[in-house]
Amino acid sequence: EAQHGFRALDCDSIKHYVAARPPLQQRVGPPASVETWTVREVGDGNINFVFIVEGPAGALALKQALPYVRCVGESWPLTQDRVRIETEALAEQAAVCPQHVPAVYLYDKAMCLIAMRYLAPPFLILRRGLIAGATYPHLSSHLSAFLAASLFHTSAIKLDTTAFRQKQAQYANDEMCRLTEQVIFTEPYITADNNHWTSPQLDADVADLQSDVAAKVAISRLKAAFVGRPQALLHGDLHTGSIMVTEQETQVIDPEFAFYGPMAFDVAKILANLLLCYFSLDGHEAAAGAGSRQAQREWLLATIRDTWSGFVAAFAALWDAHGGQGDLYPEALAGPAGGAVLAALQADFFAQLWGETVQFMGAFVIRRLVGIAHVADMDSIEDADARAACERRALRFGRQLLVEGSGGGAAAGAGAGFASMEALAAAAAAARSS
Amino acid sequence: EAQHGFRALDCDSIKHYVAARPPLQQRVGPPASVETWTVREVGDGNINFVFIVEGPAGALALKQALPYVRCVGESWPLTQDRVRIETEALAEQAAVCPQHVPAVYLYDKAMCLIAMRYLAPPFLILRRGLIAGATYPHLSSHLSAFLAASLFHTSAIKLDTTAFRQKQAQYANDEMCRLTEQVIFTEPYITADNNHWTSPQLDADVADLQSDVAAKVAISRLKAAFVGRPQALLHGDLHTGSIMVTEQETQVIDPEFAFYGPMAFDVAKILANLLLCYFSLDGHEAAAGAGSRQAQREWLLATIRDTWSGFVAAFAALWDAHGGQGDLYPEALAGPAGGAVLAALQADFFAQLWGETVQFMGAFVIRRLVGIAHVADMDSIEDADARAACERRALRFGRQLLVEGSGGGAAAGAGAGFASMEALAAAAAAARSS
Ligand SMILES: Nc1ncnc2c1ncn2[C@@H]1O[C@H](COP(=O)(O)OP(=O)(O)O)[C@@H](O)[C@H]1O
Ligand SMILES: Nc1ncnc2c1ncn2[C@@H]1O[C@H](COP(=O)(O)OP(=O)(O)O)[C@@H](O)[C@H]1O
Ligand SMILES: [Mg+2]
Ligand SMILES: [Mg+2]
Ligand SMILES: [Mg+2]
Ligand SMILES: [Mg+2]
Ligand SMILES: [Mg+2]
Repeated sequence: EAQHGFRALDCDSIKHYVAARPPLQQRVGPPASVETWTVREVGDGNINFVFIVEGPAGALALKQALPYVRCVGESWPLTQDRVRIETEALAEQAAVCPQHVPAVYLYDKAMCLIAMRYLAPPFLILRRGLIAGATYPHLSSHLSAFLAASLFHTSAIKLDTTAFRQKQAQYANDEMCRLTEQVIFTEPYITADNNHWTSPQLDADVADLQSDVAAKVAISRLKAAFVGRPQALLHGDLHTGSIMVTEQETQVIDPEFAFYGPMAFDVAKILANLLLCYFSLDGHEAAAGAGSRQAQREWLLATIRDTWSGFVAAFAALWDAHGGQGDLYPEALAGPAGGAVLAALQADFFAQLWGETVQFMGAFVIRRLVGIAHVADMDSIEDADARAACERRALRFGRQLLVEGSGGGAAAGAGAGFASMEALAAAAAAARSS
Repeated sequence: EAQHGFRALDCDSIKHYVAARPPLQQRVGPPASVETWTVREVGDGNINFVFIVEGPAGALALKQALPYVRCVGESWPLTQDRVRIETEALAEQAAVCPQHVPAVYLYDKAMCLIAMRYLAPPFLILRRGLIAGATYPHLSSHLSAFLAASLFHTSAIKLDTTAFRQKQAQYANDEMCRLTEQVIFTEPYITADNNHWTSPQLDADVADLQSDVAAKVAISRLKAAFVGRPQALLHGDLHTGSIMVTEQETQVIDPEFAFYGPMAFDVAKILANLLLCYFSLDGHEAAAGAGSRQAQREWLLATIRDTWSGFVAAFAALWDAHGGQGDLYPEALAGPAGGAVLAALQADFFAQLWGETVQFMGAFVIRRLVGIAHVADMDSIEDADARAACERRALRFGRQLLVEGSGGGAAAGAGAGFASMEALAAAAAAARSS
């Protein structure tokens, strides 16, 4: 079942693996120094192993995938093809946005391993920085740039449809997509063993959600979009745990869930995770000896607003510059009317994307409060009542995004419920104070 | 460039081809009778060759694809993989709707050939029957059944998403899709050599269309759906020239454009072709010595209404019976609320499908009046002014469907412009009398 030639590495064998491959070995230190190299396994994700090998010449990060989910074990098998997907997606992103993805030094298909740039401290997982109270002045502009470049350049706005269909086939990522379908779009809305929540505090809220017909209709529509709307190559897992930051830099890691799906999925996932952090701050402030999080709170809402508006602006700029090449909106379509046509096409496109983004945000908030995988932003609030109070506000707001994002009726993606990201942010602030 | 081992057959060589293959030969006649067999090439389509081989024991239809478009020649190359697609799609349809597709006896990959049941007279291409004034009492119920079965059973409402994604890959039909993108979704809205129309009568109408910003936005949205919304295995070319009928029977042929796309595409294409016929009747009535087409006119509108309502009913019945198996709307989602959830999911699904169907209908009407391929329903009206009068009414109504089908605003697929198929049919009647 494991990839042919596969062997799981540990902190000892990984050293010899690196030492035996000159292009890797040279980045760590001379062969004679191998015994002095240090190795740490730092994989705090749920799925894979990540080793940091350090020596006198420098350090390397090596990520290896076992044929199952790390935190569950062999009872939950998972395709090792995810490492190929991650490697190819990193290359795709590096081609259009090199400043925001780590350099890859080696992909070993048999060993299901990627060797990449070690993002050394002060690089830190964004979620951890946020929980500690940090703010990042460039985060919104970096996220905007990453989202716009990675989504635009892999879409049929930029590509001809032949290339577009080829890439779709290349990034077929069935097992990983199935995982998402299950844990994001299904389980939170039904009785499922994987689900958990702060209990008994949220029991009634979860019961409400699981008998909410409008929520079931809305989540089903999003699931249909996830399954049946290849629009661009998505990162597929773009939460605050897949981003490493310093004050000045932003690096996006871990695109093993990459596939062709609706753009709003990626945009909404990162925004929803920032929103979850926002709703968690009251709980952190309530802890003994904690300081005010007000400045971070305001920064979070500003970052949500600016990421969206920056994304729209950056995406539109790429479209203006390169859209004529692609098959979806060929140059000739503008015709004599010229700019007016392009402006109308873009307005229509972004209006639809907006409505979908709001709804997906709701889905991502909900699944992190009720489903299999929660966020440390909330989990690190020790007092269960304080945590539940934060989670309840987030859950209600998430439900509002999910159901009202589309205007609540049969009209898809109209976003009638929230006129703008400014309105959404204001509604979040109101929901938090409620 | 041609398939390896390929050889184009003619009326003589096809006889020997059949005689050399016992399973085919037996259907036509004993080997000794070969010299008495008759062969006719009947391919009136634009793309392929169809031979009818008849002998003492019976007859066969054989369809062969050359590596280019028949009516254009070698200057317009076209993948012969379309024969594999047609064969596999016919099998897929036969599995769920055997009463409405011809039996396939042989698929010869190297020769790019399908041997199938000969649909002998009184079987006639539906378009020809309609032009001659015929009506078919069972047509709407047969079309409803074919559409519902072929679309439902290949969707992720019925299938698990793994099978759904596998079938999508199986039916990647890039070159045929490119053709559709070009001639349906692009050329009618721009200046293009392939375009033609009844000129000078419609010159101003076409100029209006080609500078219509709302039409360009609407068609672009449909093109995006065609390119990026795999929802079910479509026939892909379901016009009245792809259907053979008798008074009692309906057979759907020619699924060489099959691919995974939006269900509304298939539903709308057949309805739009019935609508084109409807708008053509005034021109036929105007011919010297022609009788009234009023009864046929009423039957056509009734057939459009009944095909839609019958399709919705048949699709919903399949969903009720088998939907729990698929991944999109798993049984467990209904939960304690039970039937209310399923009813809400179906209402939302059909509301969205309705809006898209209206818009696609508009696109199909327009492309047959302005683009590369017209319909004999209109072309057979000899008087150019009478023809242009019919075409103008159809073109304006098509534009209305395309633009107002979605409610005309940013809301996708809301169908606000037409509340129901009854309303649409009434509007068509009004447009015809205008
Ligand atoms: N290039 C890297 N440099 C430094 N640390 C890394 C690097 N890649 C991963 N890590 C660390 O390993 C953890 C898990 O990596 P990730 O790619 O997210 O694995 P998983 O797929 O298991 O979630 C990250 O949260 C981060 O702490
Ligand atoms: N099985 C059949 N029995 C009888 N006639 C057929 C059959 N298949 C095709 N034909 C005739 O050949 C014509 C062209 O067939 P079709 O499959 O539509 O080819 P194309 O792909 O070139 O449009 C049809 O319009 C019909 O008249
Ligand atoms: Mg991770
Ligand atoms: Mg991961
Ligand atoms: Mg045909
Ligand atoms: Mg056609
Ligand atoms: Mg054909």
